[in-house]
Amino acid sequence: MSDTHRMSLYSLVISCPDRVGVVAAVSTFVAERGGSLVESNHHTDVDEGWFFMRNVINAQPMIVAAEVFREEFEPLARQFAMTWYLRDNRELQRVVILASHASHCLADILHRWKSGELACQIPCVISNHENLRSMVEWHGIPFHYVPVPKEDKAAAFEKVTDIVERHQGETVVLARYMQIIPPALCELFAGRLINIHHSFLPSFIGANPYQKAYDRGVKLIGATCHYVTQDLDEGPIIEQDVIRVNHSCDKDDMVRLGRDVEQSVLSRGLRYHLEDRVIVRGNKTVVFSS
Amino acid sequence: MSDTHRMSLYSLVISCPDRVGVVAAVSTFVAERGGSLVESNHHTDVDEGWFFMRNVINAQPMIVAAEVFREEFEPLARQFAMTWYLRDNRELQRVVILASHASHCLADILHRWKSGELACQIPCVISNHENLRSMVEWHGIPFHYVPVPKEDKAAAFEKVTDIVERHQGETVVLARYMQIIPPALCELFAGRLINIHHSFLPSFIGANPYQKAYDRGVKLIGATCHYVTQDLDEGPIIEQDVIRVNHSCDKDDMVRLGRDVEQSVLSRGLRYHLEDRVIVRGNKTVVFSS
Amino acid sequence: MSDTHRMSLYSLVISCPDRVGVVAAVSTFVAERGGSLVESNHHTDVDEGWFFMRNVINAQPMIVAAEVFREEFEPLARQFAMTWYLRDNRELQRVVILASHASHCLADILHRWKSGELACQIPCVISNHENLRSMVEWHGIPFHYVPVPKEDKAAAFEKVTDIVERHQGETVVLARYMQIIPPALCELFAGRLINIHHSFLPSFIGANPYQKAYDRGVKLIGATCHYVTQDLDEGPIIEQDVIRVNHSCDKDDMVRLGRDVEQSVLSRGLRYHLEDRVIVRGNKTVVFSS
Amino acid sequence: MSDTHRMSLYSLVISCPDRVGVVAAVSTFVAERGGSLVESNHHTDVDEGWFFMRNVINAQPMIVAAEVFREEFEPLARQFAMTWYLRDNRELQRVVILASHASHCLADILHRWKSGELACQIPCVISNHENLRSMVEWHGIPFHYVPVPKEDKAAAFEKVTDIVERHQGETVVLARYMQIIPPALCELFAGRLINIHHSFLPSFIGANPYQKAYDRGVKLIGATCHYVTQDLDEGPIIEQDVIRVNHSCDKDDMVRLGRDVEQSVLSRGLRYHLEDRVIVRGNKTVVFSS
Repeated sequence: MSDTHRMSLYSLVISCPDRVGVVAAVSTFVAERGGSLVESNHHTDVDEGWFFMRNVINAQPMIVAAEVFREEFEPLARQFAMTWYLRDNRELQRVVILASHASHCLADILHRWKSGELACQIPCVISNHENLRSMVEWHGIPFHYVPVPKEDKAAAFEKVTDIVERHQGETVVLARYMQIIPPALCELFAGRLINIHHSFLPSFIGANPYQKAYDRGVKLIGATCHYVTQDLDEGPIIEQDVIRVNHSCDKDDMVRLGRDVEQSVLSRGLRYHLEDRVIVRGNKTVVFSS
Repeated sequence: MSDTHRMSLYSLVISCPDRVGVVAAVSTFVAERGGSLVESNHHTDVDEGWFFMRNVINAQPMIVAAEVFREEFEPLARQFAMTWYLRDNRELQRVVILASHASHCLADILHRWKSGELACQIPCVISNHENLRSMVEWHGIPFHYVPVPKEDKAAAFEKVTDIVERHQGETVVLARYMQIIPPALCELFAGRLINIHHSFLPSFIGANPYQKAYDRGVKLIGATCHYVTQDLDEGPIIEQDVIRVNHSCDKDDMVRLGRDVEQSVLSRGLRYHLEDRVIVRGNKTVVFSS
Repeated sequence: MSDTHRMSLYSLVISCPDRVGVVAAVSTFVAERGGSLVESNHHTDVDEGWFFMRNVINAQPMIVAAEVFREEFEPLARQFAMTWYLRDNRELQRVVILASHASHCLADILHRWKSGELACQIPCVISNHENLRSMVEWHGIPFHYVPVPKEDKAAAFEKVTDIVERHQGETVVLARYMQIIPPALCELFAGRLINIHHSFLPSFIGANPYQKAYDRGVKLIGATCHYVTQDLDEGPIIEQDVIRVNHSCDKDDMVRLGRDVEQSVLSRGLRYHLEDRVIVRGNKTVVFSS
Repeated sequence: MSDTHRMSLYSLVISCPDRVGVVAAVSTFVAERGGSLVESNHHTDVDEGWFFMRNVINAQPMIVAAEVFREEFEPLARQFAMTWYLRDNRELQRVVILASHASHCLADILHRWKSGELACQIPCVISNHENLRSMVEWHGIPFHYVPVPKEDKAAAFEKVTDIVERHQGETVVLARYMQIIPPALCELFAGRLINIHHSFLPSFIGANPYQKAYDRGVKLIGATCHYVTQDLDEGPIIEQDVIRVNHSCDKDDMVRLGRDVEQSVLSRGLRYHLEDRVIVRGNKTVVFSS
């Protein structure tokens, strides 16, 4: 994959009713324009009769530009009733991160971004606390302090939305933001608003999951990266993982151990999203993980 | 540990209020009688002020028999308000297994037992189906068929209880038995009735957890070994584990993958129980896992 | 996948030089004959310029039989210099298992086979010990005792080969067989002779890996499922896994813990092989794991 | 454990020949001085007849200071031929980190240190490259640039040793330092010089382990945290872990995935070391992991 990072690549992501000939039509279309498939992932949901496809196309030998590809592909897409998009990987997505005062998830994303592991732009970080400003600015990223007072959350989220839009944010990441996102913002960023919840959902929905895990005496704790919908902690799950705990762990130990899982699950989920590996259908995801 | 399997060992398991001098008193008591500690595990619950201790004592050089040890230890136990027991590892526990028609957990336990990995006796297997009789009997273990008709479960469980008692069962294992155990039996075998639930509790309590996991689109499925109490799927957890699934797994794939987790979690939980590694306190467990 | 088990399916497995149009050509060929792709996995080795493809085709709506498909596909295969095969999943592979006196891997495979999880036939088991005869025969499978005396291994392996061929064995599994396979047999079953090695290769090649792991003080032990070649423990790896150990584990504990990893890794590797998910290239494998 | 972080605690770490009465003697000694055991870990190596013990003592109710404890304990230690030490947890260890140009392990340690998770002082970071200076200094830690030219490594390491000693470094961490440490320095910091090797040792000893892992086609890659001895990559292992890879991973993907394992294994190993959980014996470790 590393070599391919230096190539000019298109991601062509498709979902549509399952019909004989979809793959043939798409791959013939690509081949006729000189494109070679660097990576191709398929999934057929037999029960629902639905087909999912992700193609990574080496665009260098292609005889058509992305815009032309999109135009020419449109009739084919209509024929098969496709939901689809083509992304040129040289146009890095703009990811706005919302954080609170916990640093670990944000620090992890910023380090991966700085070391070139996360292929995206981070036009700004927004937080309802000031404590992470220095860390963010050290990375050369603008930091916006937007407090979220209990008595006027609506105004705060208007300001947040405004900043995201001003920075042309395409994806919004809640890096332990700890605020309930208003429905309008969920709607505006449907499928592009990513949260990390600090439990293995659907266990321990809502507040204080580590306390609940401690009280229940579970032997594993986890974290869940999911798209945010209006139903709290109920959105489509992108990625999950767990870590072992035991009787010697009190709640604070769980918090400490959980941080590692939270940050790795969020980073993995975000990378899948940025690499166009995730397709949402209903309340579930197809994730063509590498 | 292997060499120690051939030794004569005592397990001394203690829980009591945390006080200065408990370890000194117990270890001095053991040393004065010539016992050496092969393995010793401690846990202090600082919040609750409670102390837990498991000692495996090489009994060969000891100058007192188990019965004498117990008598002489009693005053010390009273002094520190201990809940405690001493088990001689040459007296193998008698484990009765209840199964339904699914074979995997039972087959795994029987194989581990036959190959000497699970140190216990299995005086009989009870099932509400006939299909596993041949497998059980091939292992040289009596098989009792006790159907559980919807209209007369009470009589069936009377019969089950009777068989367990006739076989002097000390521990009862529900190896995917799939029947709700009546309160009286839960009470009778409190702390000695072990179930495997086919989900990562507290997710997906109750029936059809794999269907629920599939519908929710989780990325890991799990299993939970726990002591049975009158509250369904709410008893103290002994052991849990998970396995990764993805969008290509339908419900039947989850059932198949889940079987492996169920049997390994149950076998591990049962081994911890048989090796006196589990201490129940309230609705939680201390598990001195090796 | 479960539903698809009841369908009539073809596996079409291809490797060839990477060229624009391979996928288009293959998928068009299939679509023209009415076949729909139930599952499709691709891999491009960019460095080596090689392409790998596995297609699972729903054969029910197809207008051609497997034999006709093969004939008609041949010109296309030649055009792209493909190495390929088509398997009809209704023709279960014949798997001969070689075992020694350790029971765990054999018991696991037999249980999975009996419960319908491993889609294959097991025409016989061959062992150089008698102790597992009863277990094998209880499953209704013929058991052949072929001792392998040090002074005349050649004759023993002639007999083994003869039995395998008489039973038309297509794949041979060494389920902890513990004998070095002579070169001629390795050659005869190249790519169809599967071993489980009781270490995380390339660590601890050769005999007594658990003793070596104990002596080195590693914190994880593992197992490796691989195709057997003439170079001991050097063949293409299909699957590996590990389990955590610590200072309290002596060598026998490692042996006990390792058994669980060995059997799960072997079963997984064998399932991948039987589902045509493994393609060997050089000394490495492409494994389209589900 | 969290609450205990705020207490004044002593770690008493002991190894000695296994004899009846060791635990009794030590625990009586502690109890007589009013100390309560917050955590206690034992291990008996039955084969070698050696005993290992770690006690975490709540020092607040104790009637003796650490210095007095040490003096009074000495006769007991002699009697049982103990190797032992007592550490007061309020005196944070001084950890000097050596890094090269790779940032991930260093960034991870610094973030854990800054967020209070690693209880130590970091008096300085030494590197043979300049690129991480800004990151280190942002954390308020002095950064020393000591190039290691091929033609004069001896002088460079004299300078490194000098800086470590000037900063009174007690433990030295090689955070992907990528230089072979001269024997004298290994000797000087025996048992206090911690390295992270980017493979699952003993696989892929020496340079370029990811390339070797890629060439061998393994299905898991790993990392190993170990004490450095004069034998390259052969020192006592503290911690190891692995991550799954597959055919779609080229060497650079392995490097990327491996970074996560390297940093988590190093951080875990370092934490065990700082919490006095590691006892070296011969070329192996006892690790009382929490």
